[in-house]
Amino acid sequence: MATINKNYNKLQGSYLFLEIAKRTKDFLEKNKGVELMRLGIGDTTEPLSKAVISGLSAGVKKLRKKKTYTGYGHPQGKIELRNALVDFYKKRKIDLRPEEIFVSDGAKSDSANIQSIFGQDNIAAIMDPVYPVYLDSNVIAGRTGELKNGRYEGLVYMEGNEENDFMPPPPEVKVDLIYICSPNNPTGSVATKNELAAFVDYALNRKAVIIFDAAYAEYIKDESLPKSIYEIEGAKKCAIEINSFSKWAGFTGVRLGWTVVPEDLVVEGVEPGKVISLWARRQSTMFNGASNIAQDGALAALSTKGQKESQKLIAYYMGNATLIKQTFSNLGFKVFGGENAPYVWVRIPPSLTSWEFFDKLLREAHVVVTPGSGFGLKGEGYIRLSAFGDKKNVKRAMKSIEKNFKP
Amino acid sequence: MATINKNYNKLQGSYLFLEIAKRTKDFLEKNKGVELMRLGIGDTTEPLSKAVISGLSAGVKKLRKKKTYTGYGHPQGKIELRNALVDFYKKRKIDLRPEEIFVSDGAKSDSANIQSIFGQDNIAAIMDPVYPVYLDSNVIAGRTGELKNGRYEGLVYMEGNEENDFMPPPPEVKVDLIYICSPNNPTGSVATKNELAAFVDYALNRKAVIIFDAAYAEYIKDESLPKSIYEIEGAKKCAIEINSFSKWAGFTGVRLGWTVVPEDLVVEGVEPGKVISLWARRQSTMFNGASNIAQDGALAALSTKGQKESQKLIAYYMGNATLIKQTFSNLGFKVFGGENAPYVWVRIPPSLTSWEFFDKLLREAHVVVTPGSGFGLKGEGYIRLSAFGDKKNVKRAMKSIEKNFKP
Repeated sequence: MATINKNYNKLQGSYLFLEIAKRTKDFLEKNKGVELMRLGIGDTTEPLSKAVISGLSAGVKKLRKKKTYTGYGHPQGKIELRNALVDFYKKRKIDLRPEEIFVSDGAKSDSANIQSIFGQDNIAAIMDPVYPVYLDSNVIAGRTGELKNGRYEGLVYMEGNEENDFMPPPPEVKVDLIYICSPNNPTGSVATKNELAAFVDYALNRKAVIIFDAAYAEYIKDESLPKSIYEIEGAKKCAIEINSFSKWAGFTGVRLGWTVVPEDLVVEGVEPGKVISLWARRQSTMFNGASNIAQDGALAALSTKGQKESQKLIAYYMGNATLIKQTFSNLGFKVFGGENAPYVWVRIPPSLTSWEFFDKLLREAHVVVTPGSGFGLKGEGYIRLSAFGDKKNVKRAMKSIEKNFKP
Repeated sequence: MATINKNYNKLQGSYLFLEIAKRTKDFLEKNKGVELMRLGIGDTTEPLSKAVISGLSAGVKKLRKKKTYTGYGHPQGKIELRNALVDFYKKRKIDLRPEEIFVSDGAKSDSANIQSIFGQDNIAAIMDPVYPVYLDSNVIAGRTGELKNGRYEGLVYMEGNEENDFMPPPPEVKVDLIYICSPNNPTGSVATKNELAAFVDYALNRKAVIIFDAAYAEYIKDESLPKSIYEIEGAKKCAIEINSFSKWAGFTGVRLGWTVVPEDLVVEGVEPGKVISLWARRQSTMFNGASNIAQDGALAALSTKGQKESQKLIAYYMGNATLIKQTFSNLGFKVFGGENAPYVWVRIPPSLTSWEFFDKLLREAHVVVTPGSGFGLKGEGYIRLSAFGDKKNVKRAMKSIEKNFKP
């Protein structure tokens, strides 16, 4: 008699963005003809750069001829691409070897799957508010108890709030896995070098492993802020870094990301260099490599031309972030993020829950945002606005919000 | 203190194809200049069809312009593609709805991940010899005990042998999950309708779930053999089907597959239609949809022109299968498969293990095959030859084998 993995029953409702899609669809069915302005999902809207298009086209052309056709590739990704990523890190004065880089179909899959190489009894610490994937993947894996008052038993929450500028310090209790996302989704805050150093210290002292999600690193303008956790001394001994081509090169639909597992990473009872082979085994058994076409596109994104063009893309979206930030500030809202990250985090009036405020914005301003509570208990009282979107659409959305919320 | 998932320690050596790659590399380093003929991995070598190339190119072009650019897509795949798959099944007189189809980055990922929606205590039955992914994914998930004498405790093995033509009957004991691969990798055998009906009967009676891997279905020429488990009455109540564009449309490098979870699927304690939402939740949480470019390629592969062109590709590889089969038969070997499947399964002399025979073929004939024992205890005594490869290369390989094994 087959039965289901009962951990799924512990998950909260449906996946946040599916719920947003559902509410939006319901609204549109009842209000035909209304044109919504979507600032909810962090989904890119601008076309790919010329360099990337050339790379992808060349990738397709190769498959047209026997001589250049390729089937299964290296499970960690093409060596040319991993070498290009080594160079990418070299610019940040970080030395990596191609063997330490694992190309994948995206940061989301890696963020969700990385927990599976660790022990079932490892205690995970996540920030609150948090990108739901770190949380949900640990719930599904059975690393938590039941959900009680918005908190899973067996998980440690690091609470982000206005006092710590939404970048909480390491936990006071002992944990084994620590998820950090910086620049942060959803709050748009960025950890300073000192803040990250505190986590690295914690991890080295407690023999914990940090899982560092750097998917938004390219949005950092302030040069004093770290774009990679490996800018912090000692981090190679305790941190895995996950990154993506999605947000800075427009690969949300093309799909491509990568994960760095340093050879120096120390995990109790396993010799150094062995965690690499564990992740290699996971990926070669349960994944079959990223698309060869997408990899050729990524290689182009990492070229000098590609990186230059992506800067324009980033500037475009950050123009939106500035506009969103200003609009809400001018209306008297307290606003966070949006300076070194493509997300703006807005404190809402205390009389409404964030889902109520979501519904209000949808109904009155026809603007779709993301309710803060979708990211955790401490997200209540806030909404997230995504800077990914067409400039005209964002302008229209901000005008509509100004009209509806004029003091 | 982070620790690792100790289930990884239970896995046998390294992943089969990595071990083959290692031995091949070692041989080449010691024998510079030798040109090897590779019939090991089931990897496509022929270029993509014109229709598929057009589809992929059109997919890239769409991303060049704002109007047609797409980011994140539907987590289950583009509706056009799922509708085309519905039509694909309709030709086999199988009615499915697009909601029952989940497009992914490949059959390997789905085969490995599908176990994660089932209970930890579910007992899995796998065939022996078997494609290693079903086995390894269950070991990693902790659904087995230790490996003893080539057998994992807690798993049920259905033994394929010459008597049952390598398509064993359902187990006699009670199991919860049953993995079937037909056409079979590695043996090339294909389950008849009666044989599959026996599994469906078993599953319905014991409330088990069948995981049916149909990745090689397009290689079936004999029209009396089932290409989908849903050709068997009652299968929608008890079977999940996994399939791929890899082998028949050349997508091994492009990456695209799909899984069917029927709405009628019954799992104890869960209402019908709920298993779909479980897999939907798994995929939307831990995966972010397949590449939009690959999906446009797949849509073209499913077009009338695409399917016609893929028939040529299949005929090409099956020509290789025939040649391999004849060569080994003529040399007096007992040969299986290779008629409705792109794999030929050859009984080797009892004086050598299959790894020894692998080494012998590598050393003497410069031909790379796959040792049968890599697929399980019952694979010992056999080798697998893949029909995927360049015709000239296969001809050279067969000549070399003839020369070395002339009676």
